[in-house]
Amino acid sequence: MESAKENEKYMFRALIATDIHLGFAEKDALRGNQILKIRLNTEFSIFNAGDDTFNTFEEVLKIAVENCVDFVILGGDLFHENKPSSKSMTRCMELLRKYCTGKKAVEFAVVSDQKENFSHTELFPFVNYEDSNINISIPVFSIHGNHDDPIGKDHLCALDAISASGLVNYFGKSSNVNEITVSPILLKKGNNKLALYGLGYLPDERLHRLMADKKVSFQPPENQNDWFNVFVVHQNRVKHGTKYLPESFLTSLADLVIWGHEHESIVNLEWNEQQRFFVYQPGSTVVTSFCAAEAKPKHVGLLSVFHNGVENVFKVRPIPLKTTRKLYFESLNIEEEFLQLNIKANADSMFKYCVDRVEDILHKAAVEHSGDVREPKEPLIRLRVEYSDELMTFSHYQFSQQFVKRVANPKEIILFKSKRSRGSKANTHTDYDKLDELMDVDETVRYNIEDVIKDYFGKVNRKGQLNILCENLLTQSVKLLVEKDASADVISQIVDKRYNDTIKALQSFSVDCENTDAVKNACFEIKENQTKDTNINVAHLLTKVSVATENIDIQVDSDEESVDSVNAVNQTRKRVTRTRDGSGAKRARGSSSRGRGKRGVSYNPL
Amino acid sequence: MESAKENEKYMFRALIATDIHLGFAEKDALRGNQILKIRLNTEFSIFNAGDDTFNTFEEVLKIAVENCVDFVILGGDLFHENKPSSKSMTRCMELLRKYCTGKKAVEFAVVSDQKENFSHTELFPFVNYEDSNINISIPVFSIHGNHDDPIGKDHLCALDAISASGLVNYFGKSSNVNEITVSPILLKKGNNKLALYGLGYLPDERLHRLMADKKVSFQPPENQNDWFNVFVVHQNRVKHGTKYLPESFLTSLADLVIWGHEHESIVNLEWNEQQRFFVYQPGSTVVTSFCAAEAKPKHVGLLSVFHNGVENVFKVRPIPLKTTRKLYFESLNIEEEFLQLNIKANADSMFKYCVDRVEDILHKAAVEHSGDVREPKEPLIRLRVEYSDELMTFSHYQFSQQFVKRVANPKEIILFKSKRSRGSKANTHTDYDKLDELMDVDETVRYNIEDVIKDYFGKVNRKGQLNILCENLLTQSVKLLVEKDASADVISQIVDKRYNDTIKALQSFSVDCENTDAVKNACFEIKENQTKDTNINVAHLLTKVSVATENIDIQVDSDEESVDSVNAVNQTRKRVTRTRDGSGAKRARGSSSRGRGKRGVSYNPL
Repeated sequence: MESAKENEKYMFRALIATDIHLGFAEKDALRGNQILKIRLNTEFSIFNAGDDTFNTFEEVLKIAVENCVDFVILGGDLFHENKPSSKSMTRCMELLRKYCTGKKAVEFAVVSDQKENFSHTELFPFVNYEDSNINISIPVFSIHGNHDDPIGKDHLCALDAISASGLVNYFGKSSNVNEITVSPILLKKGNNKLALYGLGYLPDERLHRLMADKKVSFQPPENQNDWFNVFVVHQNRVKHGTKYLPESFLTSLADLVIWGHEHESIVNLEWNEQQRFFVYQPGSTVVTSFCAAEAKPKHVGLLSVFHNGVENVFKVRPIPLKTTRKLYFESLNIEEEFLQLNIKANADSMFKYCVDRVEDILHKAAVEHSGDVREPKEPLIRLRVEYSDELMTFSHYQFSQQFVKRVANPKEIILFKSKRSRGSKANTHTDYDKLDELMDVDETVRYNIEDVIKDYFGKVNRKGQLNILCENLLTQSVKLLVEKDASADVISQIVDKRYNDTIKALQSFSVDCENTDAVKNACFEIKENQTKDTNINVAHLLTKVSVATENIDIQVDSDEESVDSVNAVNQTRKRVTRTRDGSGAKRARGSSSRGRGKRGVSYNPL
Repeated sequence: MESAKENEKYMFRALIATDIHLGFAEKDALRGNQILKIRLNTEFSIFNAGDDTFNTFEEVLKIAVENCVDFVILGGDLFHENKPSSKSMTRCMELLRKYCTGKKAVEFAVVSDQKENFSHTELFPFVNYEDSNINISIPVFSIHGNHDDPIGKDHLCALDAISASGLVNYFGKSSNVNEITVSPILLKKGNNKLALYGLGYLPDERLHRLMADKKVSFQPPENQNDWFNVFVVHQNRVKHGTKYLPESFLTSLADLVIWGHEHESIVNLEWNEQQRFFVYQPGSTVVTSFCAAEAKPKHVGLLSVFHNGVENVFKVRPIPLKTTRKLYFESLNIEEEFLQLNIKANADSMFKYCVDRVEDILHKAAVEHSGDVREPKEPLIRLRVEYSDELMTFSHYQFSQQFVKRVANPKEIILFKSKRSRGSKANTHTDYDKLDELMDVDETVRYNIEDVIKDYFGKVNRKGQLNILCENLLTQSVKLLVEKDASADVISQIVDKRYNDTIKALQSFSVDCENTDAVKNACFEIKENQTKDTNINVAHLLTKVSVATENIDIQVDSDEESVDSVNAVNQTRKRVTRTRDGSGAKRARGSSSRGRGKRGVSYNPL
């Protein structure tokens, strides 16, 4: 085992972070423009950003330096804006220059064809530390995310600019829209071998289609089992119709998938039994939306990996971030609580209750403050307050006044959510919880209403499904209504048309009209056929639609549930094992009986 | 004279360029997006921009390398947009990295207090080549222009970003808006000394006020006469009211003023006798507007300077640019020509004539092509066609069709200018020529209508001046009309109000109503007093305005001419001595009898 010791000595160490969102809320009074001028000594004043995102990016880079990593991997969305402000560009480059240039030697070599790896850059198609005119001490490798993806005829983004300066290695960029070849950057340190695959963000549906059509290929190195294969992606992980990347689509060549885009910070590695790889989702380093998932403590991961003579052994040690502005998220059902306590629920009592809650949270936040001078004192707070009567709500403005300069988002603390009465719920098949969940979406994702419709019908159970009108028609009609300023009766016209077509189709099916189930099944079949017809186009359909006739009830009930779709939702929901004590890594390894024998890789808490 | 020889050996050599406008017309079919993939050898393909501005920036940097300059001076507007596209940022940094990093040693030292020189940057307040982590072979020093000036609360611009990467030295940035101190960067090479003063663009009126109030100070080095003092500015040089920088406002400490912003490329140095300095206006490296001044050949300048033991001797050698897309500008009075030739002027004959002109120009352009593969084959052409009758004009579309892919601006070749009949001209005091000149303005300057009004009244003679309504009221009313969507009768209300006020004032003056001159003078005095009242505000005035009464003729004639203002215009117009043979430098020196004895500097064609 002499070689194992030798290899351990040359262990790869890399810092993993993602979704840093430089420039997010940079114009916000507290989160963006606070001046935090800290002079460490008379000789040199430290970085005077005061901005949340830059503070934390600096912390990330400091962690990299302190842990003597070989390199940094970023999982996309380094920038929040596609065209970052001069401030974002300036601060980003200052920080990279400060922490990633220096005399320290880089101890690994790139042995792959770099012109292949960096084919998108003509002038400098090689890793930055090989440029003899720049002393890079810590190479940063980054893919792009959906916020900073390449656009325009030239297909360029902010990462191209940073990369042109030599301060970052931008990888995982593909210029071919019809076929993608992922060629890994092959790193060698001693006898340890690490293959870094990257795939920058692509619109989920496009990537989904490309992968389904086998248009995405991977070029593994020779003797691929000797390599520790890391795959960095930035896509939806949670299922939204076809707007996500199923883990099953990823190459099972991977040993570790680093998943960007999802902001929830998950300390544990997750084992995918089918694909036989681990998934690591570090989550964002900054809170960009006020949801429960973002309230979890933020962290980055320290990857270490070496070949023990038999197999590659690795671990990812989570390192909590101390500068991130914390979010406290609570969902309150005050009325119910008041009911039990026999307190009358009205605007005044609700107001008072919420003020007390925020005070409690502020007290808790003071106790939980990391002690780092760079962690802002004012937390983000979101109270999601359910109400049944409009009279119970109160003025945001009046409420926010209590917390100016104490809470970072004073005007956005309270989110009122109308609680629908059981009565009204019983009268419909609409799944309001599912709908709320979809509308409550991460503000960074920028959903449009068509997505919500599609996702809703993708997630709701069979009872709530449409039986005659197919969803893509509905989606297209809504789109037409919203974007093309079509007249408001476009939907009723489409419904009429579909209704009449279905009647005709039913007649040709010769269905027994007395047999409700048979009619339902036939309707469903007709609808399915229509759904499959990709040529269906509302605008085209409308040209054939005659004047609308009468109001028709198209809802046909069914008690059947689509078990598959429900399971699919549950599957994507259950993935998180939440532990906050950092011991997650061990649990993530799972039972050894999983035996990852396929090619000599094992997860080993070193 | 041993020291003179020694000093000549250590002569400073610097390349001077300005107004490169990276990203200008980057979305234009020919000027911006042409793919010019030139593979020099199988190993390395050269820069694949194809864009006019990037091509020429590359040429400029190549000239710097080929001439082994010590450094490059840029006079502002390196970028055309305040927030440049990713493409502009990327290409800019690629080119700087390619041409300005390298092993070549920098042979001069910076001996000034760099924290003072680069006080706007906290992390790297020193010249880039002193960063031991970057090998800079050619330091670039740049001020900002009006296109790429710092904005926002953080007062940052694209140059800050480039500077943060270490690829440029951004100087002449002042963060104090009320008082400016210009501290020169002091460069020493052997015993030669060069002081580089910079003042990035400020709104002309603000700078004018600051300078008039003596709020701009210069910190000359000790023994200032030993130094060769270069001052880089980026302001209007041509007089527009107070919207320009009078040369007399500049410190006479300067030996050479490098003037950015003005796009006209002037090969000769110009001697300012009063200030006893030379002005060098290299002009832009790219044509951004279709005017006569931009049709002159573009060039950059090679400055060389050393101390001959008695005084600093210098020259600026103009180097013509070979890659700039040429503009051919002609002003045509076709009707007059047709009149002499007895040809009937109508749309058809005009059309044919213009087609022939463009064909001739294209022929000329082919002959004059530099032969450099990087000079685009399709020139820019502007024919300024005067017409007296709308029927003589023809369709731009039809005309442009003849020249698609042969002329770079096919749709903008013809500019029709209505020739006003002498009859109509006689009926008014409007100076149409002056107005045309103002409206025909450089498109990069982004004038608004208020500026045009102000400039017009600043330049027109007394006959054309307003006698009752003061110009700032008119300007404000127009602004209100345009920006605030005020009702269209705002101007007539203001006129009425002013008319009534003037009548009242005249009554209190007890002017003899029979004496026209006395009335005129009184009116003028009343108007002048109003003009001085800086509190006059249209919106405020409007609140006092009652309902408009009747149409009033406010024009009061005067034959007097304001001799002063006419002279001022002429003065700024006469400044150019145009020679194209490159011998300009010698002429610029002027007669030796000028004797620049003040502090041992002389211009010497080395």
